[in-house]
Amino acid sequence: MTAATADWGHHLATMRKTAPLVQNITNYVAMNVMANVMLAAGASPAMVHAIEEAAEFTAFSQALTINIGTLSAPWVASMLASATQAGVANVPWVLDPVAAGATAFRRDTSAQLLALKPTVIRGNASEILALAGTAARGKGVDAADGVDAAEAGARNLAQVSGAVVAVTGPVDFITDGTRGWRVANGHPTMPMITALGCSLTGIVGAFIAGQPTAEATVAALAYYGVAGEIAAETAKGPGSFQVAFLDALHNLTPAQLSARARVRLV
Amino acid sequence: MTAATADWGHHLATMRKTAPLVQNITNYVAMNVMANVMLAAGASPAMVHAIEEAAEFTAFSQALTINIGTLSAPWVASMLASATQAGVANVPWVLDPVAAGATAFRRDTSAQLLALKPTVIRGNASEILALAGTAARGKGVDAADGVDAAEAGARNLAQVSGAVVAVTGPVDFITDGTRGWRVANGHPTMPMITALGCSLTGIVGAFIAGQPTAEATVAALAYYGVAGEIAAETAKGPGSFQVAFLDALHNLTPAQLSARARVRLV
Amino acid sequence: MTAATADWGHHLATMRKTAPLVQNITNYVAMNVMANVMLAAGASPAMVHAIEEAAEFTAFSQALTINIGTLSAPWVASMLASATQAGVANVPWVLDPVAAGATAFRRDTSAQLLALKPTVIRGNASEILALAGTAARGKGVDAADGVDAAEAGARNLAQVSGAVVAVTGPVDFITDGTRGWRVANGHPTMPMITALGCSLTGIVGAFIAGQPTAEATVAALAYYGVAGEIAAETAKGPGSFQVAFLDALHNLTPAQLSARARVRLV
Repeated sequence: MTAATADWGHHLATMRKTAPLVQNITNYVAMNVMANVMLAAGASPAMVHAIEEAAEFTAFSQALTINIGTLSAPWVASMLASATQAGVANVPWVLDPVAAGATAFRRDTSAQLLALKPTVIRGNASEILALAGTAARGKGVDAADGVDAAEAGARNLAQVSGAVVAVTGPVDFITDGTRGWRVANGHPTMPMITALGCSLTGIVGAFIAGQPTAEATVAALAYYGVAGEIAAETAKGPGSFQVAFLDALHNLTPAQLSARARVRLV
Repeated sequence: MTAATADWGHHLATMRKTAPLVQNITNYVAMNVMANVMLAAGASPAMVHAIEEAAEFTAFSQALTINIGTLSAPWVASMLASATQAGVANVPWVLDPVAAGATAFRRDTSAQLLALKPTVIRGNASEILALAGTAARGKGVDAADGVDAAEAGARNLAQVSGAVVAVTGPVDFITDGTRGWRVANGHPTMPMITALGCSLTGIVGAFIAGQPTAEATVAALAYYGVAGEIAAETAKGPGSFQVAFLDALHNLTPAQLSARARVRLV
Repeated sequence: MTAATADWGHHLATMRKTAPLVQNITNYVAMNVMANVMLAAGASPAMVHAIEEAAEFTAFSQALTINIGTLSAPWVASMLASATQAGVANVPWVLDPVAAGATAFRRDTSAQLLALKPTVIRGNASEILALAGTAARGKGVDAADGVDAAEAGARNLAQVSGAVVAVTGPVDFITDGTRGWRVANGHPTMPMITALGCSLTGIVGAFIAGQPTAEATVAALAYYGVAGEIAAETAKGPGSFQVAFLDALHNLTPAQLSARARVRLV
């Protein structure tokens, strides 16, 4: 790893300087914490989802995120309208395919959104594998297992969809289909707090606004993981962890991020 | 109280070992805190409510909870579909009849859900009395007052509906229509935090999955109350109470629960 | 400023004594924190928005607040029904025109609600200016700038609409169209936490129930700002600020409010 590629902090500095307006069509569970996470980081989140205004709002946003956590038919219509508008207006957007494989409704919605060409797809291993299966049925990714399968599925999904794909877990994996990065920051308490994954999607949206997609996504994941590590230093459980995590997102400097990021090109 | 019946902690241990997948159709105010409460306790919550997938999801859940806090017509359809599916698939489910008596819409919805045979009904005294009045009009439970009325109404509701009924308040009362328990754990700050009652419904759902309904409900209420007592030891107000409460739900051990549970058979 | 006008604390004491039932039709992001803020302050919030029950609930509420943060067509119908009922039943109500100028949908909805005569309108400078522009097109308020423009726009909006108008920012401005007050309490961390503005609308609703509208609104804003100042004394970032803020809302006494309120008649 060269000194140049280790400077992940400058992506954070750029994001804070821009304070990008990011439209989020997300689930009810995540809305509040996602907005707080994004504000603490230095972005400008807006939760706008009504069909009457969603696409209109997308046109002047710097990024868009779409999360299918608490789906319903009217929301799917807004997701499709905003994702379409993002393509027209060249607004980068992130797809968060929550529980993509769990029900037929989710599989169908994920497939429709995937066809609208997300800039980044962020999910856990099983969500990415479910999506990879949708994109390229019969390739057998479901048959493999663990991290290797997720990385192979992610590379495959990136190639087929044209998106940067980020698989988050104990060690994150990011790929644009050819290059790949592992990010080893984070803490085991994070999955114990609801919507921290969904909120990370908002952070990715904020980082990719006006920045190189793959590198900015890597930086976003490292930033999030380092903040989690800092939070764990004082937390006594998931309640105090969440509080300390918001503080850390706000107080973490670009220099600290560069120093603590554990990123490896693979 | 015998030593055997005092071992309420083993219900917590069993719940954590199972980490049951609990589907929650709940209100917008409660979703985030309910998910955090359930994760802190060790359960696996899922907020799934769209008519396109609610019943499908119920079929593979270990428990279901339905809360009418922020009702609307499409959500009522999903509640009825999931409750029906729970009956078909033998999935235990908890009804939380928030403000059941406040409007005609709530009275009607509560009555429809009651007819679908919830496994447990959890509410405050006035909600249980409103429901008892629905189930058995003219029996005069509304004319009586205070704790005695609530206990009589709860026993009556349990007998008519076949559900275990839990009335929560400063002292909780649980009954299966014949047996009755009082749980004297808890803290006066708890009602000052929104959705802690709604979230308790999720905890009850997690405890009754694969465990004897009445006893598991008693254990769930004692667990929740003890965590509240622990939170109160360090809290300086409702903000810090909520944080300490999530920590306590996570850190409380089965042995501590058995030692601190104040349960009395009545 | 006379001693009499400086006694802002008695509005807090009256609100706590009444513990008014306030119906809130608000956005998904704000619901949980708004309910917690209102409970911590001593009010009785209820989030009721379904068309089947919204107006019925308004009739027996002590105040109503309407926030257009996460609009959709069915919610607009409920907002109009409840605001109409508030007029019929003489229930004071507060309009929070979130991002009123951002999309056509928001401009139209704001104008419809404005025609139903809110008792108080609370927003930031750009929202109030957007609304003032709607109420009195061509008066050129958008051409002016900063605080002066906002104050002029607020006075204009108050005169045209008959509402008390509160512009919140680093220094708040409240006017009934003739009189004006500036409130210099608050802290720069507050905008870094989502929905604190929305939640303030709920506090205004609680204060104006049964109290003189303009003075109670001034007191509500001072109360909120002082609580923010107290929270900032211990907070280490936006996460711990939010926790300390809820504690401060609960612990702040009327005497402390009177002593710390920085209110100036202008």
